Amino acid sequence: MEALDKVTELAYALDTFYFLVSGALVMWMAAGFAMLEAGLVRAKNTTEILTKNVALFAIASIMYLLFGYQLMYGDAVNSVIPGLSFLIGADNSAEAVLASDGDIYYSNLSDFFFQVVFVATAMSIVSGAVAERMKLWAFLVFAVVMTGIIYPVQGMWTWGGGWLDAAGYSDFAGSGIVHMAGASAALAGVLLLGPRKGKYGKDGSVNAIPGANLPLATLGTFVLWLGWFGFNGGSELMVSNVAEANAVAMVFVNTNAAAAGGVVAALITARILFGKADLSMTLNGAIAGLVAITAQPLNPSPLLATIIGAIGGILVVLSIVTLDKAKVDDPVGAISAHGVVGIWGILAVLLSTEGATLAGQLIGIIGIFGWVFIASLIVWAILKATMGIRVDEELEYEGLDLAECGMEAYPEFKGSQS
Amino acid sequence: MEALDKVTELAYALDTFYFLVSGALVMWMAAGFAMLEAGLVRAKNTTEILTKNVALFAIASIMYLLFGYQLMYGDAVNSVIPGLSFLIGADNSAEAVLASDGDIYYSNLSDFFFQVVFVATAMSIVSGAVAERMKLWAFLVFAVVMTGIIYPVQGMWTWGGGWLDAAGYSDFAGSGIVHMAGASAALAGVLLLGPRKGKYGKDGSVNAIPGANLPLATLGTFVLWLGWFGFNGGSELMVSNVAEANAVAMVFVNTNAAAAGGVVAALITARILFGKADLSMTLNGAIAGLVAITAQPLNPSPLLATIIGAIGGILVVLSIVTLDKAKVDDPVGAISAHGVVGIWGILAVLLSTEGATLAGQLIGIIGIFGWVFIASLIVWAILKATMGIRVDEELEYEGLDLAECGMEAYPEFKGSQS
Amino acid sequence: MEALDKVTELAYALDTFYFLVSGALVMWMAAGFAMLEAGLVRAKNTTEILTKNVALFAIASIMYLLFGYQLMYGDAVNSVIPGLSFLIGADNSAEAVLASDGDIYYSNLSDFFFQVVFVATAMSIVSGAVAERMKLWAFLVFAVVMTGIIYPVQGMWTWGGGWLDAAGYSDFAGSGIVHMAGASAALAGVLLLGPRKGKYGKDGSVNAIPGANLPLATLGTFVLWLGWFGFNGGSELMVSNVAEANAVAMVFVNTNAAAAGGVVAALITARILFGKADLSMTLNGAIAGLVAITAQPLNPSPLLATIIGAIGGILVVLSIVTLDKAKVDDPVGAISAHGVVGIWGILAVLLSTEGATLAGQLIGIIGIFGWVFIASLIVWAILKATMGIRVDEELEYEGLDLAECGMEAYPEFKGSQS
Repeated sequence: MEALDKVTELAYALDTFYFLVSGALVMWMAAGFAMLEAGLVRAKNTTEILTKNVALFAIASIMYLLFGYQLMYGDAVNSVIPGLSFLIGADNSAEAVLASDGDIYYSNLSDFFFQVVFVATAMSIVSGAVAERMKLWAFLVFAVVMTGIIYPVQGMWTWGGGWLDAAGYSDFAGSGIVHMAGASAALAGVLLLGPRKGKYGKDGSVNAIPGANLPLATLGTFVLWLGWFGFNGGSELMVSNVAEANAVAMVFVNTNAAAAGGVVAALITARILFGKADLSMTLNGAIAGLVAITAQPLNPSPLLATIIGAIGGILVVLSIVTLDKAKVDDPVGAISAHGVVGIWGILAVLLSTEGATLAGQLIGIIGIFGWVFIASLIVWAILKATMGIRVDEELEYEGLDLAECGMEAYPEFKGSQS
Repeated sequence: MEALDKVTELAYALDTFYFLVSGALVMWMAAGFAMLEAGLVRAKNTTEILTKNVALFAIASIMYLLFGYQLMYGDAVNSVIPGLSFLIGADNSAEAVLASDGDIYYSNLSDFFFQVVFVATAMSIVSGAVAERMKLWAFLVFAVVMTGIIYPVQGMWTWGGGWLDAAGYSDFAGSGIVHMAGASAALAGVLLLGPRKGKYGKDGSVNAIPGANLPLATLGTFVLWLGWFGFNGGSELMVSNVAEANAVAMVFVNTNAAAAGGVVAALITARILFGKADLSMTLNGAIAGLVAITAQPLNPSPLLATIIGAIGGILVVLSIVTLDKAKVDDPVGAISAHGVVGIWGILAVLLSTEGATLAGQLIGIIGIFGWVFIASLIVWAILKATMGIRVDEELEYEGLDLAECGMEAYPEFKGSQS
Repeated sequence: MEALDKVTELAYALDTFYFLVSGALVMWMAAGFAMLEAGLVRAKNTTEILTKNVALFAIASIMYLLFGYQLMYGDAVNSVIPGLSFLIGADNSAEAVLASDGDIYYSNLSDFFFQVVFVATAMSIVSGAVAERMKLWAFLVFAVVMTGIIYPVQGMWTWGGGWLDAAGYSDFAGSGIVHMAGASAALAGVLLLGPRKGKYGKDGSVNAIPGANLPLATLGTFVLWLGWFGFNGGSELMVSNVAEANAVAMVFVNTNAAAAGGVVAALITARILFGKADLSMTLNGAIAGLVAITAQPLNPSPLLATIIGAIGGILVVLSIVTLDKAKVDDPVGAISAHGVVGIWGILAVLLSTEGATLAGQLIGIIGIFGWVFIASLIVWAILKATMGIRVDEELEYEGLDLAECGMEAYPEFKGSQS
């Protein structure tokens, strides 16, 4: 009996520790997005996007603590006290754990930590798409609403046991709930914001605006790749027995396989389309592979996971080209990598998951996109009408860094393009 | 019986693994400091500061192995043999563990690993403050003394069961023992070294000397944020039952909350004072939030942790401005973020910890600062009198990189400022 | 009985999780190599080497899944189905685990994950040595053969229970099997490729070609240092009891100690030889220390580990100077750090390991070097005769980035050297 209690407590400790390690890896993805975006914008807008990335992570942490977590997982009675949302749910005392017959098997605090870094991921996706022309403070106000309300509401619909869950929508780690949700908010912002000056010629031409620092973008991609092992691996929610440990291991293998498939497919697709080994497309291929497998990284074989990722890698290249033709200006390709490929990931669940239905997945896509896009559009529109969301044209040419942040990112490296 | 022994061994394994993972995260903070400092100095002094950061970590590892650990945790009898200090303490055989009735619950080697990376953290704080004008080899000699003697002596006072512990000084993960200690050594160095040429005008003006690479500085801050989960989370020292797992999870949540509070508060404070969203202040806000919660990340509610971090974020901005008025030149703000905010963190323990007393905390502040500052001042003074601590004025204008290291950090990016 | 089963399952979960965390750290080394190499080449060749590093990791992941793992660990019967190689070996069901009496103690999927990132490490070593003049696509074709066949064949010889294992060759985590193997493939490529234009004068002079971004190179080194805790620490293969936990902790301590020794020794050696604190040599010293301890990080005392690392640090500096005299052009020092020091690491096993013999270690060196060097030479020669392995001289002067990838790494930072 004493041994049985001890092993129950120890399993609780391992699952909690596994959650915390996974959450730390997801937190690290914030650095990945910051580096990816800082590498893909021009030097003159780099300080601003770094500031946005640091600040949005902090805002997400605070808003989700105050409101988001209880919106997503709380019940009406327990959720009225801001700042205590992490206490929602089970009593985590040793007595309660031992008496729960396995129902309570990890610390709610570790669950909060794991969830809070997911919100920040969704918000990080937005910052890249609206880069190089959005006002900093308008973006931060949007971040408050997105992380405090818009994201948690739709998160509750599936992961909080809401109507999308009941409708059979299946999304393991959030191809839709996190990635497509972030992309939907981004798309709404981009549509109201318009493209960067000089991106699209009057003759219909598309001007490439190269990123200032590709090693940073590459680093950011590797950071995301690493962090994704926590993102998907932690979403199994348990590791402490043989079956669960095998499942977590399968998720790691498939997550890596899909990223690899995405890289190779995007590299080859870009080679065919552009005649070059396009690094920025290759990086987006890695992200696309990861997004594509996120809705179901457990059931596919590694071979199928590689293929799901590879299709993501092809799609992201085609989508970036197509959005540019449609004059939807997304400096880092976030809408394509997280939105278009997020939809692919949701549908790819059907390839490996008994019980998942096309109807359920489509309802999920429509429900999440509809809510996040429309809610975001309204918030962006209000911001546009009040404080404005776009910097003055002159400031856009000069760069946002000096105007918004008062400092250049690379003050000593004078460039040929400013 | 067999099961009980196995679960005891397994708990030992989990606690050891948790220590090692935490230690690896703290080791990673060395990269964070290196990137933060390299990003905040001018291009011409970047190679030198990178060299210092790599070398100080190596020196700390060796000195703490040879002398520091036994000074801090050893007893006089066992500690006479250099290089064997990690063997101090309990017999770690399975027999001893099983017979110890829970007293021996993790590998001493994992404890050594966790402790050794803490020393390096304290030393990393120094390198930023003395940047851009100190001689490389004088700094490295100081690192030998600091990591081998100065740090371990005061570490022993609290964590080794010494007089500060007996006096009731409470410091969970080292707001004082690591961060304020590092800042105290830095302050002594800065005072003997004097400000950089051109930093302070004869008319009392303060000239901003912008860092050369803000993406690096931002990356460094994210690295520190991530590493801090190991720094504070590992300092709970045990994870293997329900109560301890809950405690570790709480530490993770509060550590993140405090950093978030620091970011938002510093961002707003800088906006009010300077009219801009100052990125370097925002980064220091994150670090300040983390330093502030380090003395007690377990007891506060997440809401209180956010507030403790936020106050740290305000303080760091005010302190940086104030030190500049006092012509104390600290290129990266380390004395403010780790020293001033470290004091705040020590005092903030009183907000959440029964049994902690103002007297105990003040004794800790005075004891640690007094010892580290005076001992460091003596060592710096001896170095100044013998090998010299400041480079020649001409070399300072040319930059330390070519003179000290024989290579530029960015040889191809010619700047407007050199 | 129930408790005993639960603790067996929980131990399985911990060992699996430990494998996955270790594997994630090794995956992170891919980012380290990418940053190290990107920092040490010239700006004009940076995009290309980043593309190579991302692509080779993806190729390694796919090839090892399809062929490599079954070549290395499979038996002839089970290994005929590509893409299912990860299923090789034990049944991982809970029933099988409980019935196995401890034989099956972690998920084979986690083992696959840990192994696949090792292959990528070996391949990453090659990319640095052939930098700045090799054709991108030829390199990627070589990566297919190296990761699918050449590496797994020799990996099988020792770790798969082959003839080198039978001959007594002892290599804990792969000083030879991973690092010297990668360096052997690199050497073959470099010999067929020839040095970069302008590296060696007709008068026998050696022209230093400085890397464009030393903070990146430093970051890469710290990443490798961190990742190596997974590389060596995970190679103990088990953590779930007191003896194994102590062993893993010892590996962490020794890995860190050796890196520290390598840094200090390389720093001092370079100071003596060149009169400067040479950062790039110091970074290679860290890597050399890590490579040196990799063949046996468990048995040495930390003091001996520091010395083994220090000798590695001296050797790498001497080797880089010597190879330059021999006009073997290796832009990042990979052949020295991983090959020459890899040999040292294999021999250093004799200092601490009863049962290891000079004959066994020499057979390992000769067997692995012979196979990898000759097989690689043949593959490189075929590539040279068919698609060519070296870019045109004009392209080499212009830089590989625009020609191969169609984009510059730093388009806005115009340099004095292109």
